[in-house]
Amino acid sequence: MQVEVISSVNEACSGKLQHRTAIVVDVLRATTTIATALAAGASCVIPAETVQDAKQLTKEGDLAGGDRFCRQISGFSYGNSPGQYRGKQIEGKRIILTTSNGTRALCKAMRADHIIAASLLNAEACAQLAWELRRDVVILCAGSRDSFALEDGLCAGLLVHCLRQHDRSGMLQVDDFGSAMEALYRNKANVIMETLAQSQTGKKLLRLGQREDIVSCSQINVLQAVPYLNGGSLIQRLPGTIAQTAAPLC
Amino acid sequence: MQVEVISSVNEACSGKLQHRTAIVVDVLRATTTIATALAAGASCVIPAETVQDAKQLTKEGDLAGGDRFCRQISGFSYGNSPGQYRGKQIEGKRIILTTSNGTRALCKAMRADHIIAASLLNAEACAQLAWELRRDVVILCAGSRDSFALEDGLCAGLLVHCLRQHDRSGMLQVDDFGSAMEALYRNKANVIMETLAQSQTGKKLLRLGQREDIVSCSQINVLQAVPYLNGGSLIQRLPGTIAQTAAPLC
Repeated sequence: MQVEVISSVNEACSGKLQHRTAIVVDVLRATTTIATALAAGASCVIPAETVQDAKQLTKEGDLAGGDRFCRQISGFSYGNSPGQYRGKQIEGKRIILTTSNGTRALCKAMRADHIIAASLLNAEACAQLAWELRRDVVILCAGSRDSFALEDGLCAGLLVHCLRQHDRSGMLQVDDFGSAMEALYRNKANVIMETLAQSQTGKKLLRLGQREDIVSCSQINVLQAVPYLNGGSLIQRLPGTIAQTAAPLC
Repeated sequence: MQVEVISSVNEACSGKLQHRTAIVVDVLRATTTIATALAAGASCVIPAETVQDAKQLTKEGDLAGGDRFCRQISGFSYGNSPGQYRGKQIEGKRIILTTSNGTRALCKAMRADHIIAASLLNAEACAQLAWELRRDVVILCAGSRDSFALEDGLCAGLLVHCLRQHDRSGMLQVDDFGSAMEALYRNKANVIMETLAQSQTGKKLLRLGQREDIVSCSQINVLQAVPYLNGGSLIQRLPGTIAQTAAPLC
């Protein structure tokens, strides 16, 4: 199995995604928020690339949420803080979500055979599902303002680290950027929250008084469910449930 | 002082270079070869972007060297192995060098105020000179085939690590990619040669029987002199010799 890590959404091209499993990462905060909402019982999360798309997709009873550059979108009842997507009001709801980078990355990944949204909260489960899907893997870091974001690289490194746990026969081939991210994760494994707080987006959230978001996004492997894109909607999927008819290992 | 790290030559744009000190890194092998040649007494190294440029620049008594994708260029007497650029035959010579990525990165950095060629061999000296030049710093990783190369990221991380040693007042602002590379270096500091051997270019050199190059390029801070671009030629410059009239710290 080959594993490639793409540093930001700007670097993604469809040729790198075809016939693969794409794991999209936007730790601060879209993919953390998506995992949190599904764990809280949302029926699905629908990623929308633009605010206008989000408005058009939102029907009665849905929740529309998102941000642009860390700030809640005017007219939307929810922002992009994971803490907003817990509790009874989320149960059974369709969430329409549009964010600065994460939902754009999900839309860009559409050419892949399988699309997963990963965060630190569910990285191990995402790696397990990706392993079971038996395709080469592309980890697409959403980044921030078209550039690499430290927290996404950290999560990419954790994903590579987790994939390696499954690789008992040494078949995993990780590209140079993936190896660098794995080393980043190993160096920072004991200071995850501090690392998020020192990232450019982390600093911005701190300036905006959103320290709680950084705490929420720093938890490692606390969720088992994987947001899996199915016909435009992210639904919860559990690893360990793949049919035995999967394609042979690439 | 701001420090930004660019992942490959493909990502470099002139706007990121203006008014800054650019540190160009191509560990395997151009910037290691350049440092080795100057330490062996070459009068200068002239980077040429194309083979044709290199041929036109080469006068009687010069040495023309370089590679394309790790192989020596037909008709050139020297390749791009650091080991070829030691000994008496190098003393006093002008070296005309064209390589797949490193010399292209040097040419791309031309818009910067100061241009330094760094390798693992002289990273500490390069960081010291960059600190003394009192400009914001862009570390430009040459990469390989337009992508990030692990060994260049490792050296970028070492450079950030060394710059931090000079930063007694905590003024250094490192971008997210630079922070990731610093963590990479810290994770791999005790296994430098193994890391180079596991990189994509390292594996290719091993396949071509050029293990000695990997050994040569893995030495840390064994040279004091810094290749500094001066009117199209890289000459040796020693840190600690900057005039006191330098511009104020950015």
